[in-house]
Amino acid sequence: MHLFYAPDATQGLLTLSEEESMHCARVLRMQPGDKILISNGKGFLFDTIIEITHPKKTTVICGSERPGLDHWPYGVHIALAPTKNIERTEWFIEKATEIGIDKISLFFSEHSERRVVKTDRLIRTAVAAMKQSVKSRLPEINVVSDFEELIRNSSESQRFIAWIDESVNLELADAVEPGAMVLVLIGPEGDFSPGEAELAKTHGFVPVSLGKSRLRTETAALTACHTVHLVNQLKKQ
Amino acid sequence: MHLFYAPDATQGLLTLSEEESMHCARVLRMQPGDKILISNGKGFLFDTIIEITHPKKTTVICGSERPGLDHWPYGVHIALAPTKNIERTEWFIEKATEIGIDKISLFFSEHSERRVVKTDRLIRTAVAAMKQSVKSRLPEINVVSDFEELIRNSSESQRFIAWIDESVNLELADAVEPGAMVLVLIGPEGDFSPGEAELAKTHGFVPVSLGKSRLRTETAALTACHTVHLVNQLKKQ
Repeated sequence: MHLFYAPDATQGLLTLSEEESMHCARVLRMQPGDKILISNGKGFLFDTIIEITHPKKTTVICGSERPGLDHWPYGVHIALAPTKNIERTEWFIEKATEIGIDKISLFFSEHSERRVVKTDRLIRTAVAAMKQSVKSRLPEINVVSDFEELIRNSSESQRFIAWIDESVNLELADAVEPGAMVLVLIGPEGDFSPGEAELAKTHGFVPVSLGKSRLRTETAALTACHTVHLVNQLKKQ
Repeated sequence: MHLFYAPDATQGLLTLSEEESMHCARVLRMQPGDKILISNGKGFLFDTIIEITHPKKTTVICGSERPGLDHWPYGVHIALAPTKNIERTEWFIEKATEIGIDKISLFFSEHSERRVVKTDRLIRTAVAAMKQSVKSRLPEINVVSDFEELIRNSSESQRFIAWIDESVNLELADAVEPGAMVLVLIGPEGDFSPGEAELAKTHGFVPVSLGKSRLRTETAALTACHTVHLVNQLKKQ
């Protein structure tokens, strides 16, 4: 069944946004009486029947809310320096949303080649991936311009910095504890500066390796996200 | 240090291919005396000094071979139905090569929307990713037109089919044994046909789930690849 996104959905009558109305009425050519699924992006799904199709204001009748399956008793927060080619960051957001992620933070690092990101486009990527993979939750995406602000304000119980340095022998998969709220920092193409790594360490971030492979920023971010899920699946047994 | 690919590299004098010569001489503007690394794609790296730069036939002097770090005592073979949008398959090949994979097979399934793939382009994607991530091994990429041929000729000790069916409760991460040669089949956008799933089961393929998320073909293929590596890291302990 097709999933639509309506952040303010509640039981009863609901008008879809212009974008979702267009998708429903014109792209998919759905008809009154057709059943669709609505996600509020906050963890709940609604079984819904279309009342009126209209390219700008399609109305539906929402049934009672039910929790989605994409809840987990731990936290996955990945913070990365956006890539020079922004499509690679968008790709990460799409894939992480499919696999499941709670929060994505974008920060600018000393070695960042990119200093501007358009959040709107990144959120659209996440919404599309949420719809495609039938998720009830939309990851929180926030841009933190200052690296130090990110470091100081993080409250996760397990905080890691993926630091490309031969002296780092601890692997993320070995360090993650099941059930923990986890934040992993992923640096830019040119890696973190020594000063940034030092600052993170001072604030309790543990340097970890993501394995022997030299991974691109977006690949590192995605494997870190998947690692937290798999560790929780395998270590709890 | 920059990595170049020369499948026939041996100790001594070597002429790079036209493509690699162009990359070395024109794109990177390297000079005689500069040091580069060469991968033969078969597990070995060579420390090398450039003798003559030339846009079509750059010559280098290769030192003795040494094994790369990208060897593992198990096997990762992912077979997938190529996606309708071939860029998604190329993306999988790039990311799997970065993370590490032994073999990629592409097959055509009853529900495949794509029936043709250009292997040359896919191999170029793998070579670029191998160079970028400083790998000594190039994954084997082969196109198997007939699904039944793939099923009959597979010899891996652990064979799985990622089958999107509510009755499948076994998860890949729980099923993979460390040290095993693993093959995972990933279906097309429209999933395997019941007949294909039955055929695979008859030939010893075990249906597995990749978790509760509905993943795109290329995301499923990549998470399966990463899962085999992580299980080997975590379960051996």
